[in-house]
Parts: sequence; C-alpha cells; structure tokens
Amino acid sequence: MANHFLDIFFHPRSVAVVGATNNINTLNYNLLANLVNLNFPGKVYPVNQHTNNILGLRAYPSLKSIKDDIDLAVIAVPAAKMLEIIGDCAARKVKAVVLISGGFAETGEAGKAMQDEIRAVLRKHNIRAIGPNTLSPINTANNLAISFRPIEKLPTGRVSFIFQSGLYDPRLNWLTGEFNLFISKILDLGNKMDVNETDALEYLADDPETGVIAIHMENIAGDARKFMQILKRTCPVKPVIILKSARTPEGARAARSHSGSLVASSDAVFDTMLRQTGAIRANTLEELFDLAKTFEYLYPIKGNRVHIATGPAGEGVIATDLAALNGLSMAQLSPQTQTALRQIFPPWDINPNPFDIGASAQFNDSIRVLQVLMTAVAADPGVDCLALQARLDRYKDPDQFIDLASGIIRRGKPFALWMTVMPHGPNTIVHRLEAHRIPVFPTAERVIRALAALYKYGSRWENSK
Amino acid sequence: MANHFLDIFFHPRSVAVVGATNNINTLNYNLLANLVNLNFPGKVYPVNQHTNNILGLRAYPSLKSIKDDIDLAVIAVPAAKMLEIIGDCAARKVKAVVLISGGFAETGEAGKAMQDEIRAVLRKHNIRAIGPNTLSPINTANNLAISFRPIEKLPTGRVSFIFQSGLYDPRLNWLTGEFNLFISKILDLGNKMDVNETDALEYLADDPETGVIAIHMENIAGDARKFMQILKRTCPVKPVIILKSARTPEGARAARSHSGSLVASSDAVFDTMLRQTGAIRANTLEELFDLAKTFEYLYPIKGNRVHIATGPAGEGVIATDLAALNGLSMAQLSPQTQTALRQIFPPWDINPNPFDIGASAQFNDSIRVLQVLMTAVAADPGVDCLALQARLDRYKDPDQFIDLASGIIRRGKPFALWMTVMPHGPNTIVHRLEAHRIPVFPTAERVIRALAALYKYGSRWENSK
Repeated sequence: MANHFLDIFFHPRSVAVVGATNNINTLNYNLLANLVNLNFPGKVYPVNQHTNNILGLRAYPSLKSIKDDIDLAVIAVPAAKMLEIIGDCAARKVKAVVLISGGFAETGEAGKAMQDEIRAVLRKHNIRAIGPNTLSPINTANNLAISFRPIEKLPTGRVSFIFQSGLYDPRLNWLTGEFNLFISKILDLGNKMDVNETDALEYLADDPETGVIAIHMENIAGDARKFMQILKRTCPVKPVIILKSARTPEGARAARSHSGSLVASSDAVFDTMLRQTGAIRANTLEELFDLAKTFEYLYPIKGNRVHIATGPAGEGVIATDLAALNGLSMAQLSPQTQTALRQIFPPWDINPNPFDIGASAQFNDSIRVLQVLMTAVAADPGVDCLALQARLDRYKDPDQFIDLASGIIRRGKPFALWMTVMPHGPNTIVHRLEAHRIPVFPTAERVIRALAALYKYGSRWENSK
Repeated sequence: MANHFLDIFFHPRSVAVVGATNNINTLNYNLLANLVNLNFPGKVYPVNQHTNNILGLRAYPSLKSIKDDIDLAVIAVPAAKMLEIIGDCAARKVKAVVLISGGFAETGEAGKAMQDEIRAVLRKHNIRAIGPNTLSPINTANNLAISFRPIEKLPTGRVSFIFQSGLYDPRLNWLTGEFNLFISKILDLGNKMDVNETDALEYLADDPETGVIAIHMENIAGDARKFMQILKRTCPVKPVIILKSARTPEGARAARSHSGSLVASSDAVFDTMLRQTGAIRANTLEELFDLAKTFEYLYPIKGNRVHIATGPAGEGVIATDLAALNGLSMAQLSPQTQTALRQIFPPWDINPNPFDIGASAQFNDSIRVLQVLMTAVAADPGVDCLALQARLDRYKDPDQFIDLASGIIRRGKPFALWMTVMPHGPNTIVHRLEAHRIPVFPTAERVIRALAALYKYGSRWENSK
C-alpha cells in the first residue's frame, strides 16, 4: 500500500496542524487535541502565529519555520488565507495536504476561482490534497484522528468509510461507542478538488486492513467508468456498501449548492451501474451504518434459510413477514432438531420456526430454553442463519450466553439479535455482545435486513469465488 | 360511552384479581401490584387460596367469598382451572372478565375445546370476555393497568391501542418513558374468543378520550365488512394506523400456530380494503409507534411544502431526497423570508431550503441562527411544515428553543426534529421537547415519514370535512 499516493494521508510520520489553537471553545482546538490525547505516534507541529506552545507542544509561527520534513499539513484557516499557506506548503515540500476550511467552490464563482487557483499551485508542486470543505482522515491503526470533536477512543476494526461530507463527524463517538462499530479508516472528500471517490476506492480496495468499504457519496467527481471498474473488481473480494444521496432532482439541486460539484440526478442510471458491479445499496444513513457493522462483524452466506425465535409470539409473526419480504426463507428443521426442541416445548405442540420462547419459558427454565434451542438450531444443516429476540437480562451470567452465541458464529452461522428495549450506557449486555461481534439491533426489521444482506451478497458471488 | 359493553373493561368500579400473589418473582405479582402502586381508585380484591393478605389488601380464597359487586375479574390461573373460575364468575354475577392465561385454542384441538366450553358458559350468563391469552386493559385516566411488568407511570394522552398480542407489554415503560408516548387506552385481544377487533374499534371510535387509534392485528376474527364499515366512518374523524402482520403466507402460518385463529394470507385484499377506508398502514412496529406519536402530538395538514434545515449540509441533501421520495415538496420561500434569512447567511449566498445551519453558524451566533431561521420560515405562507436537525445542546437555556418550537406548532405548522445522536435518560432535552409535544426522532427518515403521514392524511379528507 505504501505505493499508493493516498497512503501518506493515513500514515504520515509528521503532521503539521495549521490553525491549531489553545482556545478550547473552538472546533479547531480538537484538531490538535485528538492527536495529542490519543497518542498519535508521529511528530506533530502546531502552527499558530500568536503562541509558542499549544497543549505542551512547541508551536510554530508558520510552516516555513518548521525545519523537519512534513508529510501531512492539516489546514484550517479562513479561505482567504489558504493560498498563502499552500505557498508555504510548496516551499516546505509538504507531501500532502488536507484542506479543512470551507468557503470555496461551494460558495459560488469567486470561491470556485480561489479553489482553482489553489489546485493549480498544488498540481504544479505535485502535492496531493483532500478537500477543501472536509474533515478527515481517521486511521484507527495509528490513532491519526482529524476531527472537530474530542474523540474518546478509536477501537480498531475492518470497515473503512469514504464520505462526501463531514456528516459522520458528530456521530463518530456514537459510532465507535454506543453503536460499537470497529473502524479502520475514514476519508471525507468534501469538494473533491483533487482526491475523489475513485482514488479513495482504489486505495481501500487494496488496503489489507480494510475488509468492508462503506461509501456516502452525492456525485461521481472523477471518471465514472473507472469508478465502476474498480467497484466491479472490488465487490467480489470486499463488500462495498453505498449510500448515494442527491438521488432525486430536489436532492441533486441541494447537493450542487453545498459542494459546488456537478451532480447528475439520474438515479436510475446510477442504480443500474451499481447493480452490475454487485455493490450493496443503502437507502439511509442508518442502513449504511447497519450494513457496515453487519459485514464487519459477520460474513456472507450462500443460503437463505433463517431460524427465528422471539419472546412474544406476535413478534415472531412480524419477523417472519419481514424475512419473507426480504428474500429469506423459514428454515425447515430436521427431525433430529425437532426432537431436541420437544424438550423445551410447553405441554402442547408449538411451531419450531418461528419459535415461541414466551410459551416455552412458562413451563421451562428460561436459560435452558435458550441453550437447548440455540444449540439444536445451530447444529441443523438446514439452517443458514439465526435471528433471536430475547430478554437477556434474565441471564445472571451473560458470559454463558456470549459463549453460546460466539460458538454459533464461529461454526459458520451468522446470528443477530434484537432487544425489545435497548439498554444504554457503558457495559451493557449490548456492549458485551458486540465486543464479541454479536450484533444487536433495536428492531426485527434491522436484524432481518442485516441477515438478508449477508445472503444477497454471499449468493451473488457463489460462482465467482 | 357508558352504553358500550366494553366500557366496563376500562371503568370498573371493582376489580378482582384471580391468581394474585405475594411472590414478587412471578409475573402475576405485577397484576395486583400495579393497581396498588398506581392508586387505581376502584375497589381491588385479590383472590388466592393460600394467604389472606396481599400487598396490604385482604385476600379472598375465591370469588365466591367476595360479598360485594365485582365489575371485572382478571383471571391468571392455569388453563385447566379456568372453567371452574368462570363458573364462580357466573355465580357471583361478575360483569366482565379478562382471561390472561394461555393454553387454549392456540395449543390445538383440546385447548380449542376448552375455550369453546368457557365461551358457552360466559355467553349463557351474558358475561363479556377479553382473551384468553391476553394482557390488558390499560386506562391511563384512572390508572387501571393490567400488566406483567411493574408500570412506572401512566401519563395521559389521546392515543389508544388495540393489540393482537401482548408484545406491547415489555415495551410499555419504554413507550411512556423514553419514547414519551401519551396514551389513553390499551386493549390486547389475544385469542379473540369473544371481544374482537371490531368491538374494540367500535368502542374507541366513539370514545371521547381517544383521538388517535393504533392497531396491531394479525387477522379479522369478526365480521370483516363491519370492521371496514366502522373504519370508513372513523378515519375521517380520527386517524387510524394499522400494522397488519401475518401478511405473507409464511407469517400467516406462524400466526395460525400462536393464536389458534384463522388467518387469511391475502395481503393484497386487505390492503385494498384499507386504502378504501383511509386507514394509515404501518409496515413495522416502529412505524406504528412513530405514527401514533406523530398524530397524538401534531395535526394533519393539507399542504406538502416542507422546509428542511440541518447542521451538516450533506444531511440536508439526504433529507431532501427523503422528502421527495415521500411525497413532500421543498417549500419555495417568499422574497420576504429570503430577505430575512440573508441576515444569517455566511459571507456567500446559500440555498434557503434545505438550509445549511453549519455554514451559517460559522459566521453567526448559533442560537440567533435558529431563532431567525425558524421565525422567518414559520411565518412564510408557502411553508406547510418544518423539519430540523440541530445540536440543541448549544442552547444554555433550552426553554427559549422550546418556546420557539411550541409557537410554531401552535400557529398551525407541524414541526419535527431529528438529533444526530439521541441523548438517553431522564430529563434530557428530548424529554423536555416531547413534554411539549414537539417530536424528536433519531433519523431524518423518521421525521420525513411522520410529516408525510400528516400530509397524506390531511389531504385525503380535504373534501370530507
């Protein structure tokens, strides 16, 4: 990966932060504070004319006053000052720049002219740039975190994101915290003056740390054909999930006005192209994040036979509808499995799928119900994946359940849960399950959507692997 | 309402709880505990052979040993004992019964025979019955709460529910707590041995305390034509939202096995009938609860012109797509409004709809941005409703914002918010907003779905009011 020009953005040995500040009430404060607080291992140079120390680091009045090599300059200054700073970058032979500031092409003709001028200087000096009007990169492997928010932690994982805008930033702590998403890298492309979605996809496609790619995009700024070609060769190897917004004429109009980019409004054309590549289309941010988590936690499956078990039986009917509507089929259990389940039946015969845990637990120990049920169902060769709604607070020792669930997943069957009411806060059962890559969602529809996506992806590449 | 036979279920002057117990580890414990703890004002008679005092109330060995009139008997005993208790009810001239216990038609032929026998006795003595296999009623006006969970509070509101099963019960504290739903009544019909969905709808249609009706149903047990007729006359007066599960053949099969009821699987027929009545169809439990809240908080609108404002501009593009896809149109603001908004523009021209709060707040005080924006947009005759994503934690005094938002809603424009990350726990800004009937959802799609439903309903009845 070191050969790709984007590599320097994720693995800089030194980072200058132009616009760094001691003022904790500004967004810029966090640009430097995150690098310091998360112990980014590279060298960090704050640049600020008005002070010589920020957060314990020596501050420099300008890039020119830094004597060492600078791999990456992160620049957050008013738009009108940007060209001067870019000149300094050229003089100091900075390898790459991230232009955080807005005020360029997205503001109209004058801003577009400034952006074009900056691009010309950067091209002349062969400096690659992300932005302007951007907020990134993030790399969890080395705690490189360019963000406006104080980042609490950066757990490492296999999903990498390409964003069109900084809308992920206010969600970052939630994504890595309550939502338990395990991220490798994040790139926000902003106005795409230089680096565009094709570059980013090309890099992540070959990045060994990236196993799943999730993209939020409004337009294709680069060569659409090349983008689709890379997508086509990447999808069989790594799931790529795409939320394409600006899909309606109204949305396209709104996108043009905030990014200054040309945004085509033919969603049908984009959709057809996507379908040819095998990319997974997400319709909402929630779906983008849900599927990113699903593919990061679990693995594609070739079969669509689901087993569903719920507390209230009515919930099982709802989930069964959802399964049927999303292309899953209700698994027919083997005679052996059915015999095993009779141990935990109420005094009458019940349907083994969807299984009514509520009826069973009126007459059996509820922990034993789950153990017998899940062990038998997971061993059944006619079952490809499992969906469960259960009140796990009954477990005095949740580790028992976590062991059981992890075992199922390890033995090759994706397994996802929904909880009637999601507990919040640190160290909940949800957090503990998800630390073991057992996904928990708040609704049946999100569980079924996740399992259905694993099947759609897994069955598509049946012949290509 | 006192004339409808269902009225006694919601306004009993006396309730006997057969199967009441001192054992706090059983579900039955809460049947009595809720009535005691929530101060249900009627007389309460615990019935239990083994003790003479439960929760400070005198307990009776049998219904027969109670000398006073019994309006309602709530019965939670093993199925095999039910017929005997029903005999006691007849002897004591109990007016109505709720049969909590399962183990009847849903278990097969033998259970069905027991259920038929019980029905015959009840009919003979003219005693109306809800259930068996049920859990209700709830009436917030008098704190009548028949539930297996300890109910924390029962705030009063205008939405009433009819459920097919007890799946609402584990969610009840969440619905009235974190979700801030304001409920009037809940009826769970279970096996529908006697009282069915048509009876329940008929009652709620004329109930002056019920302004919105939300229904979860798997089948029509009674006269489908009568159900649709009542629906048709009710929908123009009160929004009726219906989640019909068992809509696929697989779901219908599952439903037959848990309720013992005949469940038709022709969803298309049901859907056509529903559309003729003007009922609002929900596709998931989340949508059922979201729309119940939306219609309880707000009011239908005849126009579909929405104004959208978001923190990150990319979020505005996503919301604009969603609006277009859901039948809303982006409001064209008047020249007057546009002039007002220029006060809070950044140094360049931005699109007034969707409005980019992020760009604006870089150059203006963020509280003033919201105030100028919302005041101007709400006063624009070309705007029918407002959707806002904003970081309200910037407000040191949230009451300012609540006043502003309440004013907009009072002046006739529905207004809904989404927050990037929902805060949890008591006394959050969400709780305070929703106490003023300003709905807050976690995603743009749920805000847009809510506003679109207000428009779809409001525009349908344009000519009928």
